[in-house]
Amino acid sequence: MEPFITPTPVQEIAWPEAGDNRIFLKRDDLLPYSFGGNKVRIARAFFEDMKRRGNDAMIMYGSPRSNLCRVLSALCFDGGIPAVMISSDAAPAQEAPSFNERIVSGLGVRVIRCTADRIASAVDSAFELLRGEGRSPYYIYGDRTGSGNEACAASAYAEAYGEILSDQERLGVRFDYLYTPYGTGATMGGLICGAAMHPAAVNPYIVGISVSSRTHERACGVLEKTWQSYLKELGAELPAAPEELYRLESGYNAGGYGISSSGIEQVIDQMLKRHSVPLDPTYTGKAFLGMLKDLKSHDIHGRNILFLHTGGTPLFFDYMMQGSKGHD
Amino acid sequence: MEPFITPTPVQEIAWPEAGDNRIFLKRDDLLPYSFGGNKVRIARAFFEDMKRRGNDAMIMYGSPRSNLCRVLSALCFDGGIPAVMISSDAAPAQEAPSFNERIVSGLGVRVIRCTADRIASAVDSAFELLRGEGRSPYYIYGDRTGSGNEACAASAYAEAYGEILSDQERLGVRFDYLYTPYGTGATMGGLICGAAMHPAAVNPYIVGISVSSRTHERACGVLEKTWQSYLKELGAELPAAPEELYRLESGYNAGGYGISSSGIEQVIDQMLKRHSVPLDPTYTGKAFLGMLKDLKSHDIHGRNILFLHTGGTPLFFDYMMQGSKGHD
Repeated sequence: MEPFITPTPVQEIAWPEAGDNRIFLKRDDLLPYSFGGNKVRIARAFFEDMKRRGNDAMIMYGSPRSNLCRVLSALCFDGGIPAVMISSDAAPAQEAPSFNERIVSGLGVRVIRCTADRIASAVDSAFELLRGEGRSPYYIYGDRTGSGNEACAASAYAEAYGEILSDQERLGVRFDYLYTPYGTGATMGGLICGAAMHPAAVNPYIVGISVSSRTHERACGVLEKTWQSYLKELGAELPAAPEELYRLESGYNAGGYGISSSGIEQVIDQMLKRHSVPLDPTYTGKAFLGMLKDLKSHDIHGRNILFLHTGGTPLFFDYMMQGSKGHD
Repeated sequence: MEPFITPTPVQEIAWPEAGDNRIFLKRDDLLPYSFGGNKVRIARAFFEDMKRRGNDAMIMYGSPRSNLCRVLSALCFDGGIPAVMISSDAAPAQEAPSFNERIVSGLGVRVIRCTADRIASAVDSAFELLRGEGRSPYYIYGDRTGSGNEACAASAYAEAYGEILSDQERLGVRFDYLYTPYGTGATMGGLICGAAMHPAAVNPYIVGISVSSRTHERACGVLEKTWQSYLKELGAELPAAPEELYRLESGYNAGGYGISSSGIEQVIDQMLKRHSVPLDPTYTGKAFLGMLKDLKSHDIHGRNILFLHTGGTPLFFDYMMQGSKGHD
């Protein structure tokens, strides 16, 4: 069954540390399916792609705290599709399983654990396992090296971008900047495609804040490949040079994926106290703090800033359980 | 600052055990403020009432898992209003503090614990404490016996009822029945007032499923007082005899407030697996199961049923942490 997805609200929040910029949140954390978040849109795209290609088993990859794997697991359970999750243990060790892990295993997904340098062979094992059960598996990222399905990943936020343009119109606000967490590149790559698909619109400048461990060079390469793949599929092109449309910042990742800091925890605390909105240390808290730093370092003033709240509510509750871990 | 509240979606869900009835969820769990739920609307009404009366300190009462106290605490923190929570320990002992408790204490609310028979004197102590600080306190339920402010409590869902009528129109569906959890009576009492305020509309028949420990007689009395108080304030009357507009069921409370059962846990599990929507054992899971039983025992067939999902997402995560507690 199709997951239930409705347009999400946009909320202006007071945030004194952002100076005279106006800060808005696009509340994709409120998407109604499986605790919300950007991965609801992206998982739907992968799931539809699997069906379109005639596959009948799902292989996914992510960290133990992966929001994408949570939503994909829900879709697979609902659709009667056997699923295998390859789980990297690159993230810092945790005391207890994350809520996302609990939900994934409650949905009957088989988990193969591996280190970050053994993913390709784990993908092979997953294919073997499912083929041995008479299935035709689909790997969300394409081939065994995790390459080849960038276009599908990007399609979700290319579509969601249209919703953001409608928000602009409805609210009568022109967003000068659109800030988004950058993790796999699917969300930001999709937004860039969205801008390319609406060349005549008043498009916000897109800034990605990397929360991943990738080097800046690698992150930029993955991002470029993502939007290029989908634009090629559409037969479209960027309406301007990339640097006029977006930039990616890798200097705010606090040392790597899943690593927190006292600054991030302060921002999570402030957001909860000021606006009762949950953030988390891995994605949205890190990216929101990165945005605040970026506004300062790029001397951005008097602008309308839209922050894409990409969700991950279960990670907020992990954070509440585990308490402070950050260092600066 | 005004909490950010937007209309919530209505979702149809497949639920084979409901026979040929169509089941819809009004997703008030997705209200954008403080993890959502009916208490967002109700807490806003209390908070506005406090300001209107010229008070400048808040006294609230609830169980340690209270959603209302969570939202009120957020509003008070935001508005710089000192707050005291009177916390009953009537609920079964828990291993760890609930997420709502953690959030409340993180927001600097002072908690007075008492047994259920000592609430009035705890209210006195709270008044004394805050007056001693030069404040003019407001107790959400009125006087020290918890009586007198029913009209304000009811006003929130009297207003929300209009949103449900708009949902009906937008979706082109006539809801024959509106099921709601009954706890304090504020939500159901408000919905009844909403029906009275729209006598010409096609109004669903309202059924409340008690999740509280109150006797049926007492529950009916509290409910009646709630809608009567607000209708009196409005100078309005019920458009028909009460039994033609609503009924309250007290036979599905699993033995009392906060007590779970294996049937409730099964429904929570099914809802998560089938539709990726969180329920909890104290309120929504209990009421949803009660609704299913009620549809059978009242031989209701081929109808459009709207279940008000009153939220409490933090309680879902408590439940995931603590695991099964139910017995049947």
